[in-house]
Amino acid sequence: MASSLLTTPSQTLAALTPAAARPRRTSQVSFSSPRRALRVRAAVAIEKEVPENEAPPTFLREDGAGAGSGSVRERFEGMIRRVQGEICAALEEADGSGARFVEDVWSRPGGGGGISRVLQDGNVFEKAGVNVSVVYGVMPPDAYRAAKGAAKNGAADGHKAGPVPFFAAGISSVLHPKNPFAPTLHFNYRYFETDAPKDVPGAPRSWWFGGGTDLTPSYLIEEDVKHFHSVQKQACDKFDPSFYPRFKKWCDDYFYIKHRNERRGLGGIFFDDLNDYDQDMLLNFATECAGSVIPAYLPIIERRKDTPFNEEHKAWQQLRRGRYVEFNLVYDRGTTFGLKTGGRIESILVSLPLTARWEYDHKPEEGTEEFKLLDACINPKEWL
Amino acid sequence: MASSLLTTPSQTLAALTPAAARPRRTSQVSFSSPRRALRVRAAVAIEKEVPENEAPPTFLREDGAGAGSGSVRERFEGMIRRVQGEICAALEEADGSGARFVEDVWSRPGGGGGISRVLQDGNVFEKAGVNVSVVYGVMPPDAYRAAKGAAKNGAADGHKAGPVPFFAAGISSVLHPKNPFAPTLHFNYRYFETDAPKDVPGAPRSWWFGGGTDLTPSYLIEEDVKHFHSVQKQACDKFDPSFYPRFKKWCDDYFYIKHRNERRGLGGIFFDDLNDYDQDMLLNFATECAGSVIPAYLPIIERRKDTPFNEEHKAWQQLRRGRYVEFNLVYDRGTTFGLKTGGRIESILVSLPLTARWEYDHKPEEGTEEFKLLDACINPKEWL
Repeated sequence: MASSLLTTPSQTLAALTPAAARPRRTSQVSFSSPRRALRVRAAVAIEKEVPENEAPPTFLREDGAGAGSGSVRERFEGMIRRVQGEICAALEEADGSGARFVEDVWSRPGGGGGISRVLQDGNVFEKAGVNVSVVYGVMPPDAYRAAKGAAKNGAADGHKAGPVPFFAAGISSVLHPKNPFAPTLHFNYRYFETDAPKDVPGAPRSWWFGGGTDLTPSYLIEEDVKHFHSVQKQACDKFDPSFYPRFKKWCDDYFYIKHRNERRGLGGIFFDDLNDYDQDMLLNFATECAGSVIPAYLPIIERRKDTPFNEEHKAWQQLRRGRYVEFNLVYDRGTTFGLKTGGRIESILVSLPLTARWEYDHKPEEGTEEFKLLDACINPKEWL
Repeated sequence: MASSLLTTPSQTLAALTPAAARPRRTSQVSFSSPRRALRVRAAVAIEKEVPENEAPPTFLREDGAGAGSGSVRERFEGMIRRVQGEICAALEEADGSGARFVEDVWSRPGGGGGISRVLQDGNVFEKAGVNVSVVYGVMPPDAYRAAKGAAKNGAADGHKAGPVPFFAAGISSVLHPKNPFAPTLHFNYRYFETDAPKDVPGAPRSWWFGGGTDLTPSYLIEEDVKHFHSVQKQACDKFDPSFYPRFKKWCDDYFYIKHRNERRGLGGIFFDDLNDYDQDMLLNFATECAGSVIPAYLPIIERRKDTPFNEEHKAWQQLRRGRYVEFNLVYDRGTTFGLKTGGRIESILVSLPLTARWEYDHKPEEGTEEFKLLDACINPKEWL
């Protein structure tokens, strides 16, 4: 397994994450994308990761549009690593237990690497993972053409078919608090780029952005959901008034548990294959979204982390965590793709809650708080 | 959704189980097969079920090889319904709490139906489901050809392509005890038959059997595993000396969690598409296997149901239950197929444990009892 082949842009990072070989702690980012995962699955091979003792200043290669060039890849890597540090520090402070994120660093011989940070069994957080990764890979021509079909910028179409080198980087996180009234948060921002085709002089490189931030409460507290969505909208509105409504709907559509006819949670924003705007603008947009995670989420955690609860509240939270598991294992493209192509399991599955529950044929009674949450998962609402 | 289309024989029952529409309690069998699920997935539609107040004497249609004919379908339905009753009675007695299986009955307008029985939160059993179902459907010609490729008996190959009516019936069960030293059991026996092609006079109908019984302990107690496997072998040896070694290996191969490089448990027997023996012999074999569930399993439950345990034992059991969830949601063909084609969710997912757990990067220390179990899941052993 010495070579990396890749397939689709957004699955890149999950897919290229290496097989869990050594029982040393290493890491990867798990990314989700609503498209194209199945089509080209067969073409993927994954290069094995190597554990590292500490994170290098950059995971970028020194060739081409790499380190020190002021390139988008460099600025994006800088952003996700800075955000990882800021978010972990803020979460440790909010947790207040003295529990610290445990860090696992890995690199791959062909270039790239990642940093996983996990905090388990804190005061506030049951399980919190914040991962970054940088991946260099080679995409088979078919996958490149499929990707090009979705993306609108980029290289001339007539150039000779051959493996297409690509670069991908991202940050991904799932935060599961203990208190049933404190919601779970997921966010994920990623950047993808192919090399410029060498045989078509002047043809540009292809690139796109993907990501989103979404909230999964067990109880519907409108004040919290409105606050969360309003911070997402503020971030979006700084760039384009169409972003929030468009990405809010995309989020509702993506986090859909088809066999339940329910959304996993109460949404937020989600986008993928985004490249039909100025590249710097989109980099700034992703940066703004990632920077909005803490202001969108921590005020809710502060308000709810000590709310009194009983066993019934906890059991309902556990049932909703079961739904989280169902979505992630059955539908989430990053997860299913990562699992089936040999990604690092512990990093992919850090998104799963510490505990979950399945009762036969459980149905909350109409009018209860549990029913209210379920109804909002079945019928997505406009919160603003 | 008034018509049933089907695909592959062994997915039949899971696949044809109807969309969960009414919040009334209805039921289905979830079946697993190691083959062909993905190939023909798109061709399936599922007829909606109708809840019934009580189980009819038979779910067979009165046409053709139906009720009262002494046919294999009739004898198979009789067997699975008798076995369902016997096993539920034995489990209620073993549970000793006075907890009873709750029964849900459903039928489908086009013929067939099912009975789900679930016992939750007993003394001994956390969650126990025993389901039977009978399905009439129509298989697209492509699916029929794919199925014929695997099966070796049956109709002439040259007949005109057209939808192929089929019949399928089965019993399926997962039993999750509370005590971490008492293992989980799964079994599932099914019979599949297509109609004889009308346009090829004299061509026989196609048929096959599938099924198996397997054990998933959290702790390896050799005495228990040997007992379990020896009962499986005894059942097999009554029919063919090649059955046990062949079906034992098939079981190890099927219940494989690829992304973990672990089996779900310690195996048992598993077979599918079995038709290259006398049909009566295979009916008797399936009957023998189903009849061996109680003698294989209950003595273990009796020995382990009151074993003292601590929180660490329970946490390890919960982690292993997490693996059970991973296998069922990611790999089990009956489950994944049923979920994606609109099967009755509560019946399919009754196989999931009441509770499960995922810790980041948990690795049992070498030499511990937890390590011993894990090692046996990674390296399947010969128990006899």
